[in-house]
Amino acid sequence: MNAPVALTPELLTQLTAIVGENRIKTDADSLENWGKDHTKHFNPNPSVIVFPSTTEQVQEVVKLANQFNIAITPSGGRTGLSAGAVATNGEIVISMDKMNQILEFFPADRMVRVQAGVVTEQLQNYAEEQGMYYPVDFASAGSSQIGGNIGTNAGGIKVIKYGMTRNWVLGLTVVTGKGDILRLNKGMIKNATGYALQHLFIGGEGTLGLVTEAEIKLERQPQNLQVLVLGVPDFDAVMPVLHAFQKDIDLTAFEFFGELAMQKVLDRGHVQRPFETQCPFYVLLEFEAPYEPIIDKAMEIFEHCMEQGWVLDGVMSQSLDQVESLWRLREDISESIAPFIPYKNDISVLITHVPAFIREIDAIVQENYPDFEICWFGHIGDGNLHLNILKPENLTKDEFFAKCQVVNKYVFDTVKKYDGSISAEHGVGMTKKPYLEYSRSAEEIEYMKALKKVFDPKGIMNPGKLFDL
Amino acid sequence: MNAPVALTPELLTQLTAIVGENRIKTDADSLENWGKDHTKHFNPNPSVIVFPSTTEQVQEVVKLANQFNIAITPSGGRTGLSAGAVATNGEIVISMDKMNQILEFFPADRMVRVQAGVVTEQLQNYAEEQGMYYPVDFASAGSSQIGGNIGTNAGGIKVIKYGMTRNWVLGLTVVTGKGDILRLNKGMIKNATGYALQHLFIGGEGTLGLVTEAEIKLERQPQNLQVLVLGVPDFDAVMPVLHAFQKDIDLTAFEFFGELAMQKVLDRGHVQRPFETQCPFYVLLEFEAPYEPIIDKAMEIFEHCMEQGWVLDGVMSQSLDQVESLWRLREDISESIAPFIPYKNDISVLITHVPAFIREIDAIVQENYPDFEICWFGHIGDGNLHLNILKPENLTKDEFFAKCQVVNKYVFDTVKKYDGSISAEHGVGMTKKPYLEYSRSAEEIEYMKALKKVFDPKGIMNPGKLFDL
Repeated sequence: MNAPVALTPELLTQLTAIVGENRIKTDADSLENWGKDHTKHFNPNPSVIVFPSTTEQVQEVVKLANQFNIAITPSGGRTGLSAGAVATNGEIVISMDKMNQILEFFPADRMVRVQAGVVTEQLQNYAEEQGMYYPVDFASAGSSQIGGNIGTNAGGIKVIKYGMTRNWVLGLTVVTGKGDILRLNKGMIKNATGYALQHLFIGGEGTLGLVTEAEIKLERQPQNLQVLVLGVPDFDAVMPVLHAFQKDIDLTAFEFFGELAMQKVLDRGHVQRPFETQCPFYVLLEFEAPYEPIIDKAMEIFEHCMEQGWVLDGVMSQSLDQVESLWRLREDISESIAPFIPYKNDISVLITHVPAFIREIDAIVQENYPDFEICWFGHIGDGNLHLNILKPENLTKDEFFAKCQVVNKYVFDTVKKYDGSISAEHGVGMTKKPYLEYSRSAEEIEYMKALKKVFDPKGIMNPGKLFDL
Repeated sequence: MNAPVALTPELLTQLTAIVGENRIKTDADSLENWGKDHTKHFNPNPSVIVFPSTTEQVQEVVKLANQFNIAITPSGGRTGLSAGAVATNGEIVISMDKMNQILEFFPADRMVRVQAGVVTEQLQNYAEEQGMYYPVDFASAGSSQIGGNIGTNAGGIKVIKYGMTRNWVLGLTVVTGKGDILRLNKGMIKNATGYALQHLFIGGEGTLGLVTEAEIKLERQPQNLQVLVLGVPDFDAVMPVLHAFQKDIDLTAFEFFGELAMQKVLDRGHVQRPFETQCPFYVLLEFEAPYEPIIDKAMEIFEHCMEQGWVLDGVMSQSLDQVESLWRLREDISESIAPFIPYKNDISVLITHVPAFIREIDAIVQENYPDFEICWFGHIGDGNLHLNILKPENLTKDEFFAKCQVVNKYVFDTVKKYDGSISAEHGVGMTKKPYLEYSRSAEEIEYMKALKKVFDPKGIMNPGKLFDL
């Protein structure tokens, strides 16, 4: 990591000349505000915040940073959960807030070209106005920016059908750490002309360069979405239910959560239990039903699952309102457990290994901390589990987190045993940096560091994130 | 490029010790056979062919090659069309022919782990036996190998729905040019732990390392596929037809071809004209119709297109046999024009630009070589055009190709003008190497060369392909 460089008057003058006087901030409130993301473990301490309007301005700032040997932290919607966009060390923060234009729509290509600061929801709404659909969706869609989504390869609740952000990126304009502007892949579906450099920047957490524009693919709008919530007797029943539906119906979501999560959501009093039977686990599945026979088919599979004993009870949405209220059982979990100061992990393993993995983690926590409650939920359809340990009342926050650190080690050992990921969709940033070796081999990390040197030889782009050089 | 190194007895002994006596060939026929792919412009001249059985054996060979400073050419199904797998300079050819095992099936993940030498059709058949589907399909599926498909990011006829090979790779085992074994991404859908190195090897044409195993995603089988062939009055009508169908129906293919291509196919006498009306262009579209109303919807759109004058005539498949015979109108084109010694280009531009692009190329060829016939066909649904110029009878092959080289320059200038790709799905290899700069900027090429040095510092992996160092 570079030593912090004080913001000299000369540097400030030159930065101002690049972005303009009203596009630069150095007051304490702004440094605090734009110096961090949604994580709270690190104290923001940038030198200056700049708000460029064009790719060329970003390039000028990067060249200047190289010249002055001062680090850059990219900043998007600041919704990150791994401290990938926190400036702690006198950095120049490049905020994309003013690069928020949707530039061009290509109907024949079902594609849109956007600046990196476009907010996810803004893109979703724009797509809808064109009669199209942008399917990457998650709780923070109202503030997260496309550039940040690309930097962490954001996932969310529709991955089982639509995949991660990576699937929707047809082209990228980036400014590398060296200060070169690259226009990568230019929106093409088919282009076999050498290394697909765009894929390094997707999920690269801004450590190789800054994404300034993107060509994003859109999809047709989903038609007549239906939601089923099913109660299952144990986790082992979840898999046959997944298979039974997936065989005949293209699912747009397959989520799961435990009874504890259900209770916490119900306790808030905004939604009601979907059916009488209390079950250890629940699955929520969603699918398109543009034709009546698909609903008949779903009911048939539902009944088959009941007969097999895989499902104890269930309900299917009867209206658009009910689709929304059933989704809240799943979507309100994070907010509902927030008062219990959950210790969060965002992990993934092969779907095949999920049942054994959950059993092992439950056993480990039970054995070591029998008074800890585990709130499981996640995107089973793609092997992504959100493991939330709730703080018992008798522990202080610090005592609790200290014990969780110990649990963490067990959890990551188990992730490694199953060849899983310590960060499924939240990135590494600073919070997961110490654990990177649980998911990537020493050789892989060496190659990553060597690639970083190619694009960012002076190590000025988002240093201290992902790994230390 | 390295100077050729003679195959010393010592090297031969050590190679034999690694792969075994019956897994090494040095006879002239074998050198000729495994020293080339489907291109004919280069004379194969390797030193030795080895047939390793395991990733570890590949690693040993790569380490040895580094030690002796001798180049390696990877060899798969040898169906490549850009001389990406031709050994011209005394190389060790590593053939994946004996690494042809399907290793493990993960039903819950809809995933299969395979060795790189598995043939595409072998994987397609295996998937079918499991009640699943591998959707990457093209004419050479009977011989092309998965490793080669990955190396060129192969596309084919179902890309509009299923995407390129890249979309189906959930994990890769590679041996880098340096001799490290990397197990990349391990089959996960969600894994946000740093740079997605696997994406460099996908489409990397074996210049960074050798793919030895892959985790491949499978899909449910398509249900009740239907095919429509429509005749259109001019190319401008193709786009509204695409939009009209795509709005309401998920297409699995949207192909086009000109009347000249149709005539060449009909001349062979294997299939009949699908309807009386002779049209300048035809589109073939395919979709799933698991429910009757989808067919009604398709007929409704068809009629709408007729009323609008976008379609002059058309036919819908009435049976599985007819699905196959209609597909032959498109699939038999390459073979039907082969006797006319076509000069082939495989290019892509945004779908938006296709009509203007085709007009410009037609005009350029007409102006410069009014006696040349252009046979257009391709995957319009993803902007991929196969431009085939047929040899006039009065020219010798050499005269014809010399003139085509001149046309080529115009074609690639036009590709560049539209920010397109000079190789949509065939890769660069040696045949497109001189033209790489038409699709990639000088800066991009410099970064690619620097990445090559990271993974292959001695430049022994498939040298002379993609670019010269």
